[in-house]
Amino acid sequence: MEPYFKVDQWKVIESGFHPEQNRVAESIMSLGNGYLGLRGYFEERYSGDSLQGTYLAGIYYPDRTVVGWWKVGYPEYFAKVLNAVNFIGIDVSLGGLSLDLHTWRPEAFKRVLNMQEGFLARFFTVKDKKGRQFSIKAQRFLSKAQRELAAIRYSITLDKSPCPEEIEIEVGPFLDGNVINEDANYGEDFWIGLRASSSENYQLVTMQTKKSDFVVAAASTFRLSLDGKELKDLPRRYQESHRFAQAQASYPLREGQTLTLDKVVAITTNRDFPNWEVNSRALEILNQIRTKSYEELFQAHRRAWRQTWENSDLRIKGDPLSQQGLRFNIFHLNQTYTGEDPRLNIGPKGFTGEKYGGGTYWDTEAYCLPFYLGTCEPHVARNLLLYRYNHLEKAKENAAKLGLKGALYPMVTVNGEECHNEWEITFEEIHRNGAIAYAIFNYVRYTDDSNYLYEYGLEVLVEISRFWTSRVNFQPRKQKYMLLGVTGPNEYENNVNNNWYTNRIAAWCLEYTLDTLAWVENSNPGRAESLKTGLNLKDEEVTLWREIKDKMYYPYLEAEGVFEQQDGFRDKELITVEQIDQEDLPLSQNWSWDRILRSCFIKQADVLQGLFFFSEEFSLETKKRNFDFYEPMTVHESSLSPSVHAIIAAEIGSREKAYQLFLRAARLDLDNYNNDSGEGLHITSMAGTWMSVVYGFAGMKVCGGKLSLAPFLPRQWQEYSFKLLFRGHRLEITVGKKQVVLYQKGGESCSVVVHGKTQEIGPNQEIKIALPF
Amino acid sequence: MEPYFKVDQWKVIESGFHPEQNRVAESIMSLGNGYLGLRGYFEERYSGDSLQGTYLAGIYYPDRTVVGWWKVGYPEYFAKVLNAVNFIGIDVSLGGLSLDLHTWRPEAFKRVLNMQEGFLARFFTVKDKKGRQFSIKAQRFLSKAQRELAAIRYSITLDKSPCPEEIEIEVGPFLDGNVINEDANYGEDFWIGLRASSSENYQLVTMQTKKSDFVVAAASTFRLSLDGKELKDLPRRYQESHRFAQAQASYPLREGQTLTLDKVVAITTNRDFPNWEVNSRALEILNQIRTKSYEELFQAHRRAWRQTWENSDLRIKGDPLSQQGLRFNIFHLNQTYTGEDPRLNIGPKGFTGEKYGGGTYWDTEAYCLPFYLGTCEPHVARNLLLYRYNHLEKAKENAAKLGLKGALYPMVTVNGEECHNEWEITFEEIHRNGAIAYAIFNYVRYTDDSNYLYEYGLEVLVEISRFWTSRVNFQPRKQKYMLLGVTGPNEYENNVNNNWYTNRIAAWCLEYTLDTLAWVENSNPGRAESLKTGLNLKDEEVTLWREIKDKMYYPYLEAEGVFEQQDGFRDKELITVEQIDQEDLPLSQNWSWDRILRSCFIKQADVLQGLFFFSEEFSLETKKRNFDFYEPMTVHESSLSPSVHAIIAAEIGSREKAYQLFLRAARLDLDNYNNDSGEGLHITSMAGTWMSVVYGFAGMKVCGGKLSLAPFLPRQWQEYSFKLLFRGHRLEITVGKKQVVLYQKGGESCSVVVHGKTQEIGPNQEIKIALPF
Repeated sequence: MEPYFKVDQWKVIESGFHPEQNRVAESIMSLGNGYLGLRGYFEERYSGDSLQGTYLAGIYYPDRTVVGWWKVGYPEYFAKVLNAVNFIGIDVSLGGLSLDLHTWRPEAFKRVLNMQEGFLARFFTVKDKKGRQFSIKAQRFLSKAQRELAAIRYSITLDKSPCPEEIEIEVGPFLDGNVINEDANYGEDFWIGLRASSSENYQLVTMQTKKSDFVVAAASTFRLSLDGKELKDLPRRYQESHRFAQAQASYPLREGQTLTLDKVVAITTNRDFPNWEVNSRALEILNQIRTKSYEELFQAHRRAWRQTWENSDLRIKGDPLSQQGLRFNIFHLNQTYTGEDPRLNIGPKGFTGEKYGGGTYWDTEAYCLPFYLGTCEPHVARNLLLYRYNHLEKAKENAAKLGLKGALYPMVTVNGEECHNEWEITFEEIHRNGAIAYAIFNYVRYTDDSNYLYEYGLEVLVEISRFWTSRVNFQPRKQKYMLLGVTGPNEYENNVNNNWYTNRIAAWCLEYTLDTLAWVENSNPGRAESLKTGLNLKDEEVTLWREIKDKMYYPYLEAEGVFEQQDGFRDKELITVEQIDQEDLPLSQNWSWDRILRSCFIKQADVLQGLFFFSEEFSLETKKRNFDFYEPMTVHESSLSPSVHAIIAAEIGSREKAYQLFLRAARLDLDNYNNDSGEGLHITSMAGTWMSVVYGFAGMKVCGGKLSLAPFLPRQWQEYSFKLLFRGHRLEITVGKKQVVLYQKGGESCSVVVHGKTQEIGPNQEIKIALPF
Repeated sequence: MEPYFKVDQWKVIESGFHPEQNRVAESIMSLGNGYLGLRGYFEERYSGDSLQGTYLAGIYYPDRTVVGWWKVGYPEYFAKVLNAVNFIGIDVSLGGLSLDLHTWRPEAFKRVLNMQEGFLARFFTVKDKKGRQFSIKAQRFLSKAQRELAAIRYSITLDKSPCPEEIEIEVGPFLDGNVINEDANYGEDFWIGLRASSSENYQLVTMQTKKSDFVVAAASTFRLSLDGKELKDLPRRYQESHRFAQAQASYPLREGQTLTLDKVVAITTNRDFPNWEVNSRALEILNQIRTKSYEELFQAHRRAWRQTWENSDLRIKGDPLSQQGLRFNIFHLNQTYTGEDPRLNIGPKGFTGEKYGGGTYWDTEAYCLPFYLGTCEPHVARNLLLYRYNHLEKAKENAAKLGLKGALYPMVTVNGEECHNEWEITFEEIHRNGAIAYAIFNYVRYTDDSNYLYEYGLEVLVEISRFWTSRVNFQPRKQKYMLLGVTGPNEYENNVNNNWYTNRIAAWCLEYTLDTLAWVENSNPGRAESLKTGLNLKDEEVTLWREIKDKMYYPYLEAEGVFEQQDGFRDKELITVEQIDQEDLPLSQNWSWDRILRSCFIKQADVLQGLFFFSEEFSLETKKRNFDFYEPMTVHESSLSPSVHAIIAAEIGSREKAYQLFLRAARLDLDNYNNDSGEGLHITSMAGTWMSVVYGFAGMKVCGGKLSLAPFLPRQWQEYSFKLLFRGHRLEITVGKKQVVLYQKGGESCSVVVHGKTQEIGPNQEIKIALPF
């Protein structure tokens, strides 16, 4: 089947207007710059089905928790990402008739996401009843060069007219804060209007969120031109109403003429400025940009994207589907998080929808961090770590709420407070704490920034270890420590005992904390002493960590030689996904929850997640046995799942399987695989796609401080190539059928292990290594 | 510590006004007649803390289910019991000042629930600033003789006045439909006003619920008298506004005079009449009762209560605390359910609060049925069974929603649809299905109404057996059938495998269905054939039931010789309730849910519930071992729990323990043991209290069609006595220290087994049997 969106290496193209696909296209065509985000909805009014969404990083609403049976420790609220002021709006009227593609129905229609240059373009033609044909071009971007800035160029051409007279074209760029969240209870309104004004100089709408008291100002201005020549003296009308500001102008268009509106917007919030400055700052920025042309603003934006792609592109030859999918994923990752603000993080839907409330999950540490580590300067990944460090006190409060010691990082959070309220997740899916610790390990292993451990890491590790210590219980008959009542990464099991992955990562946390502590004590005794005093860390506690780590219980299936996902897993009816009616997939949409829970089916990598994280601990044989046991039962109904399976499949030599899993993940949203892309994109899992190639196909690891590769080329490809920023080295790795080419741009000499053999690469050197098979 | 409410054999007395206890007193002093219910709030306005609640049986609102993660099979709504029109209201103004006990603060105050005659009385005195003292008496009842009728007598006496002039007393009886539910989201309003009018003949308020479209009409009228003499010509003023209707009258009172207002109300709903008749029927009933005096109406009500007590009283000598507690429980049970309407059932809070949404739980079958069986004519219990029979189709739909066969009765329901939305309860607490089957068994065993099996019972049993058959899975290694992913009666465990109780009752259901089927085939082959055809019941299905029943898996702890509550229970840290900080109790208010779940602590009888239900199957020794193992870990945080433990304790000879458990249950609300009586009373557990005495202390069972007793007298008592209606026999059993006296009122000869020996009791005969120890 042809993909709905045209396959192109750098673009996503929708041809023809299909209203039933509009939400999907809106998600796919979302723009973002780490600060502003915007679904691909239309500038002009549209009365058909659409999920209009404009999102501002860090702006949320604390929706009250409503549950049937309130349990001690529940968070008071769950955070909602808020639909904010619509700043792209332009009322368009053609010869007195309001333009609305739901009623006009375009003849030609194309929507194009240009990933290379980071803009959304739209082209369509419409005809009125008199047979007059207009073509409309719209292009917009959220500036990667100046985050508060958005710009739109909207052109209307009168292509043909059977009538001699001119046609009055009216354009009315507006800011509209009368927006609601689609997921709001009873259409509740989360905003209070503070100011709306419209005048010659600007349109301005300022609003404040209820409860969370965020203040947002949007200021805009515009320029009109005819066939490229500015229409300076065209009279304008101004109107303002509640949370709404608009300017209007009309021009009598003749056949062949083009009227162009350039609208620029500046958006500021009280996350960056005091409340009383939010307005003036927006106007200040607007004043700076109003003097520049659309082209100038766009040039700066393009330059920034060029730089980004320079570091993070991943080229594939011979497989346009994969190429498009991968670039699409990398593009959205770079749109979502830029690493400039440690108060921000990555929500599973980024700026593309309301689902998951915009909060941060363990996805960041487990899936996204490697991407940013590999493709960005280290401060970007470091800011992701600092986000958690800055929330340490709240994580301690969170553990205390559950009667536990140390720190329990929230399952979902915006500002460090837990804001998810299902007990089996909030209270029990505690393996997330392990991912926070693992991210520290991963970051230091990759960057060698061991100062981070002195400055921040060890504190977090100690509090996480304290949590595990208070959460385990000792089973005297078995002389083992256990973790009862948990939910593992596979959320299709709840409240199980001794989830293997959770037990393993808990013990690993203790071990890594012990190692880190010993290392700090060794390398910086003074700092170690002051940290221990500050943390009130006693020797007995450290001894207990060692004891728990050594005596952790791990369920194991002797006959099968595999780790048991949790106690009692073997009592289930063990069948494969292939054995059930394929119409039942996805199970989450077709099976009741109890049926899912008592089935053997696995939502996402669980035991295999552990084999991926702690890859060095396990033999290939062990990985193979576990993969062969668990993969056939895995439904991959979390978008996070296929990439981890792909990496392990690649390692154990199941290359075909690895490729299939990769492709599924890479094109999940483009092909709307789970029939849910209309709600927003699976941003965090996009990083998994990148990992599938770099960690999977290229076999990238960091061992003993060296980058290690074990690349192969999937048979579907002719070649692939990616960049890595590793400890100051800028490497480009190109994998062909028979050889891998390593190139270092500038820098100093660098050792890279390829298929077990160390290679030295000098500055600007390229070396070629034959592939072993 | 002195109980807050004065101890009295037939009354509950609150002396002195304690605003902080007002909600508790309002719950305790609730009135009900199976059709109307009313918390004990004040007639006059009260601006202090109060939970004003007026409830109408079967009137509910389907509140939208809001969950973080929607799961297939969730019910669309959960039912809310609705606060309905306040029909007791009387505005009172004394010398121009509105009477409000929050601002006036009474000098003397007494609120008395008269359980013997079923009315609520209140007496208080207030003084105004001029030193004028008034005493007010209020008495009200919800007629047990005519369910639509409520009546209030409200008297105001000017006791003393230092001023010579008369004082203007204004009374304004009103109906007020401007009520909300306290548990409503954002103060949502569930009612639409249809009509409000006030005139010489009546006040009337008619309202309709949103969504569920129930129509309710309240019509009232009143009479005023001075010192017992009607004030016929006193001018009245009438006012009506949205959902509000009031009449007002004033009288200049002199020292020593008493002004009395008798207000009568008739309430009808479209549950009984077509929408267009609801108003006229209310007025019709009002017209019938308006000619009668308050005393006449009250006499009829008292007679009905006398009759009720005649059948259901349980007398205790020597222990006023127990006596009051027991009567309080019996009183409320009789207020809540009368068995006249098979569309109604018993909610855990009856008519005393909003909690639990007024829905029906398995409490009815497991706890309430025995009380109504023992104290009422059989049709009352039969109507409880028919309630479920009438919901069979909906229970089948419910099972189908979960992808299962047969019938799964809802965990909570009003009209047969599931209306509880926590997956661990709704989808997994499936043992409730067993209680529905057990109730059939219990009813037939007690009443010998085996026709019920032909007519209704077998159909329900077959569908329940089909459910279990589709819910089990076969474990080939163990060659056993298992039930994975369930929640047992102990809701402090969720999603466990092989809850012993659930497995046992599932197998028992199959067995009982097989037995019943065989019995019907034997005794009525024609009916059996038509039932089998109607149910499409094949021999293979019956064979499978036998197989599953025979091969059911039961977790067992060999070393301890006890049934294991569920797989893995033994891995918990097994400690006793006494070993934890007593300040942590109740755990549900102090421990986070995950901590409760991974602890060994048991909310309510679970294994012991099975030992109680299937008492004959287990030896005393087995019961003792299991009791000694589980009782110390049981926190009894469900009000249903202590009674079952008390019954088993009594049976195994732990009499002191049995008494303590009984007393806790009996006075749970009166002593506000769980600090939650203000939210409403624990109605369904009240039946457990009755069972503790009758099944526990008196050792009542039905074996081989005979009533069997094994009574003993708790050392705290001098004697106790109760009535039983058993298969047409009216028995009175009086247990003393050394002997038990059996008396049969009227009837035919009856065999009763006492401590293993069969006794024959003739009509109107009394026999005395010495107690063995």
